[in-house]
Amino acid sequence: MGLSRKEFLRLSAGGLAAAASGGFFAFLDAPKGFAEDVLQSDRIRKIHSHIASNKARHIARVQEYLRQPSVSSWGLGIKECAELLMSYFQRLGSKEVELVKTEGNPGVWAYYDAGAPKTISFYIMYDTQPFDEKEWGSPPLAANIVKMAPFGDVIMARGAVNDKGADAMVFNALDSILEVEGKLPVNIMFTCDGEEEQGSTHFHQVLAPYRDRLKTCNAHLTLGPSQDEQGNVEVGLGSKGICAVELVCSGKSWGRGPQQRPIHSSRKAILDSPTWRLIKALNTMVKADGNQILIEGLSDPIRPPSQEELDLYNALVRKFSGRLLVSEKENSKIWINDWTDAEALRHLLFDTSLNIDGLWSGYTGPGMATILPDRASAKLDCRLVPNQEIDPTRELIRRHLDKHGYADIEIIPIGGGDEWSQTSVKAPVVQSVLSVYKEYGIEPAIWPREAGSSPEAQYTRPPLNLAAAQGGLGHGGRAHSHDEYIVIEGNEKVAGLVRAEQSYVDILYAYANWPEG
Amino acid sequence: MGLSRKEFLRLSAGGLAAAASGGFFAFLDAPKGFAEDVLQSDRIRKIHSHIASNKARHIARVQEYLRQPSVSSWGLGIKECAELLMSYFQRLGSKEVELVKTEGNPGVWAYYDAGAPKTISFYIMYDTQPFDEKEWGSPPLAANIVKMAPFGDVIMARGAVNDKGADAMVFNALDSILEVEGKLPVNIMFTCDGEEEQGSTHFHQVLAPYRDRLKTCNAHLTLGPSQDEQGNVEVGLGSKGICAVELVCSGKSWGRGPQQRPIHSSRKAILDSPTWRLIKALNTMVKADGNQILIEGLSDPIRPPSQEELDLYNALVRKFSGRLLVSEKENSKIWINDWTDAEALRHLLFDTSLNIDGLWSGYTGPGMATILPDRASAKLDCRLVPNQEIDPTRELIRRHLDKHGYADIEIIPIGGGDEWSQTSVKAPVVQSVLSVYKEYGIEPAIWPREAGSSPEAQYTRPPLNLAAAQGGLGHGGRAHSHDEYIVIEGNEKVAGLVRAEQSYVDILYAYANWPEG
Repeated sequence: MGLSRKEFLRLSAGGLAAAASGGFFAFLDAPKGFAEDVLQSDRIRKIHSHIASNKARHIARVQEYLRQPSVSSWGLGIKECAELLMSYFQRLGSKEVELVKTEGNPGVWAYYDAGAPKTISFYIMYDTQPFDEKEWGSPPLAANIVKMAPFGDVIMARGAVNDKGADAMVFNALDSILEVEGKLPVNIMFTCDGEEEQGSTHFHQVLAPYRDRLKTCNAHLTLGPSQDEQGNVEVGLGSKGICAVELVCSGKSWGRGPQQRPIHSSRKAILDSPTWRLIKALNTMVKADGNQILIEGLSDPIRPPSQEELDLYNALVRKFSGRLLVSEKENSKIWINDWTDAEALRHLLFDTSLNIDGLWSGYTGPGMATILPDRASAKLDCRLVPNQEIDPTRELIRRHLDKHGYADIEIIPIGGGDEWSQTSVKAPVVQSVLSVYKEYGIEPAIWPREAGSSPEAQYTRPPLNLAAAQGGLGHGGRAHSHDEYIVIEGNEKVAGLVRAEQSYVDILYAYANWPEG
Repeated sequence: MGLSRKEFLRLSAGGLAAAASGGFFAFLDAPKGFAEDVLQSDRIRKIHSHIASNKARHIARVQEYLRQPSVSSWGLGIKECAELLMSYFQRLGSKEVELVKTEGNPGVWAYYDAGAPKTISFYIMYDTQPFDEKEWGSPPLAANIVKMAPFGDVIMARGAVNDKGADAMVFNALDSILEVEGKLPVNIMFTCDGEEEQGSTHFHQVLAPYRDRLKTCNAHLTLGPSQDEQGNVEVGLGSKGICAVELVCSGKSWGRGPQQRPIHSSRKAILDSPTWRLIKALNTMVKADGNQILIEGLSDPIRPPSQEELDLYNALVRKFSGRLLVSEKENSKIWINDWTDAEALRHLLFDTSLNIDGLWSGYTGPGMATILPDRASAKLDCRLVPNQEIDPTRELIRRHLDKHGYADIEIIPIGGGDEWSQTSVKAPVVQSVLSVYKEYGIEPAIWPREAGSSPEAQYTRPPLNLAAAQGGLGHGGRAHSHDEYIVIEGNEKVAGLVRAEQSYVDILYAYANWPEG
């Protein structure tokens, strides 16, 4: 683990005082009169009412985009969906709309030039997960409007919330701005991914030709439905990196045990076993508890959390005392080392980890097949916090195996890998989002970092170095599962399509009018 | 391992002299004039020519039996095949022919009473492996006669050699004896298994009602094609036992880590991992080499090889110097600890082993699914030599896990399990088989024990305690694979159907006339 218990206590103590004064709006520092001047302006009101009066048309566009399949793992509808997406950019009046070939599914580049002082970068994924139609209450490509308590009308479809339905609402919001104002308040560079659900393996090839252009952006912004079922909102300021590898131990590469294929298991009496060897190798990588990482140097690059990160962490602990890690608790009530919730959160945000995602060898079906397998494999992922990087981490795993006598065990990188990403809460794009939430009376939980990984680092890390934020009202759920939905009608707590689209307008204008950034 | 290197050398040295005098026929002690009096008698000649002149009818019966499917894993044709088999016993004139219900597929019991002084026990399996018809050169249920170099005509079918085609030849041989002689030279108790390919899980329920009857048998005999492609023959005098278990490490049973289902792998930072725990537990079971077993007491019951076993081992080493373990060498050229072939053979025959047959946890498909699995499993098999037994071995694995703090790891027994089996080369039923091979000028390789396991122990171990032997000419191949075949025509080295059936007659008469047993 990156930090000792002693360091943990020392650092935590420092931060507690800092955030003790208030909630998360203590981290917002908006110019005087900003809400009145910008968010409550007539201009904004006009756009809001344009959205409200075009609700039916906006719903139809969400359905149109969702009815065009784009299942990357099946290769279904990818080209057609990319073309539909390009037509949306053309409708906005983007001067540049280009299909970007990669070694995988094509990406899309579009540039909308408002002649505005600020330019923002948008990431759009246009592919979806596959689906098993018979599991669905409403056909996943029908994008029907169905009733779902307590939200009223929702659209049920594959991609409803992840991300096509949500993106269609953003395009609706942009259309309404254009129809009322004639132009957007910011310039936008869109970079679009056709294989996010496949790990965005080739997405760097979409970015590469436009890197010098993207560098000129002022910020990277992700608009979309951010509310949970209760209407609560989180703002994440960073994500962990992920170094994923497959370890393969084979008789062939070892030069011992079965070389070509499994052999009858009675031959274990005379032959070495690549499966036992993989177990012995994995055993060297963590302590007896399965938690403390023994790979030399792996934790060395970890920097202690910054004061800002600690302040945010302490605000989370204070504000959500007793309600932390709720979804995790549905599956486990005991953390590593019987940590308190606050201790666990600290590790979740700021520490590295080494996980076995998959492990397999030989016969894994019912009953028995008596074989001595010729190979065994494990998929591992190491979560990376600043300043751990993917390539050096993989190299340390290699060195560890070599040093312990396992030079024959192959390390196969999985996926391109996302590096960690971090944006300061002080970044104008973050402050803009917070100012809009404050206007709505919704206090967001600000996470100094999220435990998962995201491709955001491709925008926030060198060479682009953009500050990044996500935000917006609205709610959807069941991403990757059947009956995926996005809320259209909404209720007192959760925004429907109209309020959601209005919030995207507000965030764009807040950022356009923020004094810096 | 059961024996130290020092013991190995000491025991080997003792045996080398004993078998130095000759080949495997040094182990045959036939009465004077036995070949002339029995195997070359007119009675036998008449039966032989009856077989030769009924070749077409005998081929048709092999086809008939093979065309009746009996795929136990698909539940296909089981009842019908059992009925067909029963009709064969009725045709022999068996007074008792009974379908024996079990909790699985039914068995069959039949008793043929010749009023002879000796009674032998026959084991018959009537089920087969499944098949994928499109992989076959000739449809697996057509039982067509096809040409196959260098054997001439063969019958290609699922079950051709394993075991239905082979058994049909045995039934043909019995029919010919009856048609020439009016009765068989021995009484026979048939116990038949309808789920051998499913691990014979319920076969003890077939034996149970007839145990007192079976105890009165003089020997257990398996007739069938025993020649390899070159016409060589092996005689195995025993088999190893097998204790197969599945170890399951789950968050639920551990009370730590994910309890219900996998969780997002980023949560490894705060949650324990049942997969790492299984690796740590397995790691305690063998030394760093993956070979030396660390389960306390597991090797204690192993008795040193007997003088007879060592003599046979030494004969194998001398006779097959440079040609030992040929099929294993296709897959690996290096044995554990760089043993010589002779050392490896010694361990293969006389030592125990602990193998991982299967290992799995989490996501094992292409690419990555970032999950922290809630469970991990391993299938292990421990090969048992005299006097290791299944239940105590499983208990020692349990105690080992408990002692190392893994009381939560479940041990699920797999299959009924075969105990070790051992028959002396001096047993009359073995001697009878050897005498027939000697008559043919075929010197069999006698294996004091085979490395694999077999249900033979159900006959050779208490309460039945029967001596067991297998033998007979003929050849077939590709058991469990596509294009399974049995040779019908044959060549100079490999017996076709006629010579094979004649050899079964010879073995039966040899045993019936052997002075003891």
